Amino acid sequence: MTKRRYRIDIAYDGTNYAGWQVQPNGVTVQEMLQKALTRLTAAKVKVHGSGRTDRGVHARKQVAHFDLAGPRNTVALRRGLNGVLPPDIRVLAVRRVSSEFHARRSAIGKEYRYFIWNAEEVPPELRLYRTRVRVSLDIDRMRKAAKRLVGRRDFAAFTANPSRPVASTTRTLEELRITKKGPEIVIVAKGEGFLYKMVRSLAGFLVRVGTGDEEPSETAQIIESRVRTSRVKTAPPEGLFLWNVRY
Amino acid sequence: MTKRRYRIDIAYDGTNYAGWQVQPNGVTVQEMLQKALTRLTAAKVKVHGSGRTDRGVHARKQVAHFDLAGPRNTVALRRGLNGVLPPDIRVLAVRRVSSEFHARRSAIGKEYRYFIWNAEEVPPELRLYRTRVRVSLDIDRMRKAAKRLVGRRDFAAFTANPSRPVASTTRTLEELRITKKGPEIVIVAKGEGFLYKMVRSLAGFLVRVGTGDEEPSETAQIIESRVRTSRVKTAPPEGLFLWNVRY
Repeated sequence: MTKRRYRIDIAYDGTNYAGWQVQPNGVTVQEMLQKALTRLTAAKVKVHGSGRTDRGVHARKQVAHFDLAGPRNTVALRRGLNGVLPPDIRVLAVRRVSSEFHARRSAIGKEYRYFIWNAEEVPPELRLYRTRVRVSLDIDRMRKAAKRLVGRRDFAAFTANPSRPVASTTRTLEELRITKKGPEIVIVAKGEGFLYKMVRSLAGFLVRVGTGDEEPSETAQIIESRVRTSRVKTAPPEGLFLWNVRY
Repeated sequence: MTKRRYRIDIAYDGTNYAGWQVQPNGVTVQEMLQKALTRLTAAKVKVHGSGRTDRGVHARKQVAHFDLAGPRNTVALRRGLNGVLPPDIRVLAVRRVSSEFHARRSAIGKEYRYFIWNAEEVPPELRLYRTRVRVSLDIDRMRKAAKRLVGRRDFAAFTANPSRPVASTTRTLEELRITKKGPEIVIVAKGEGFLYKMVRSLAGFLVRVGTGDEEPSETAQIIESRVRTSRVKTAPPEGLFLWNVRY
């Protein structure tokens, strides 16, 4: 039977998951989706995401694709999936796509948002979705450093050792914008692609600049060193959201 | 020994509490605070709140007072309380106040915010803090009705039968503002005081106006009827936050 390809847009609260990708230790979002699809269609279905998210990282919009035999009503598929998925994973949209569409390979860009709550205490309802920073952050300093990070660069100093080695650590960071509203600081990162733990590394470095532990003027030197050192910290996962995937 | 009075500002995620006030069925926020104070001071302490919040309602800022024997460092008290309280209740500030201060009687106004997510699905991380409304809401209609609710009025049609009868159902609603940003609609209600379930009743009515089930022009008639009918629904608790108490 001819298989048809579907694209799904999903959102998830990553608190209780061992990240996106199926793995032996812990329940993952990909696994939950595959099980939900199997429950609905009685077939084994492989779900391909636009990329992985780490343990504890959230998504306002992750995109994936999968193939199903026979025609399917996309509204019924969305509702059916939301009926069997737990409330911390929601399918926002399901649409039929051409068999050329590939969630990872067709993606032309991604947006991540890193949320910081710069105060003594995080409001309780946000405690699992904001990174608390108690020391007052200097946004102007952070913006100066962010400006120096934007562009096509070798970001080897802003990644962690990946489980699989990558061919190149050069990426184009299209935008690195910092907004502040009361105690909430948001780091918006847009690019065609990101290295393993790159956004959390950028956020961790920017926080150190904001506290005064690093100078904005030393950003270029750190990039050019191409070596990951303790000057670049990996910020905790709970503040990070995959916000959008562009096609 | 002379007792000294302290004011505390607290925030809480009301999801797992049977409201503010101590009661036989279920754990309450007041009870948690009293137990935490007893653990810290080895004394029986009565905590007086600015008012009650219902089961499942949240607070970005609730204010309370209590008396303790002997001098206390307020910073140590805040940290000590946060050390023994669960993460869904946070003490934002502790300050020494005059013995004339009374959390309820000294309050001159309150602000509540009711959060609606007007879309098919609520982002998973907000699922316990937003009320989902799937039918598209007409904000202009809601604003027209809100304008007619503001002022000093008898709000008998917008309250539920309280556990203790009140002397008067007349209140001054100083402000009833509706903001919209993407799928998020926020109803901001400010007043000197509110009746039992009044904000949720106002929100429930405004939602019916927004869906087209009620006309903004009939608002005055409903107020003047002074009778609670099914035309005024009580909106669910999860969207409601006590946002501020003014002194």
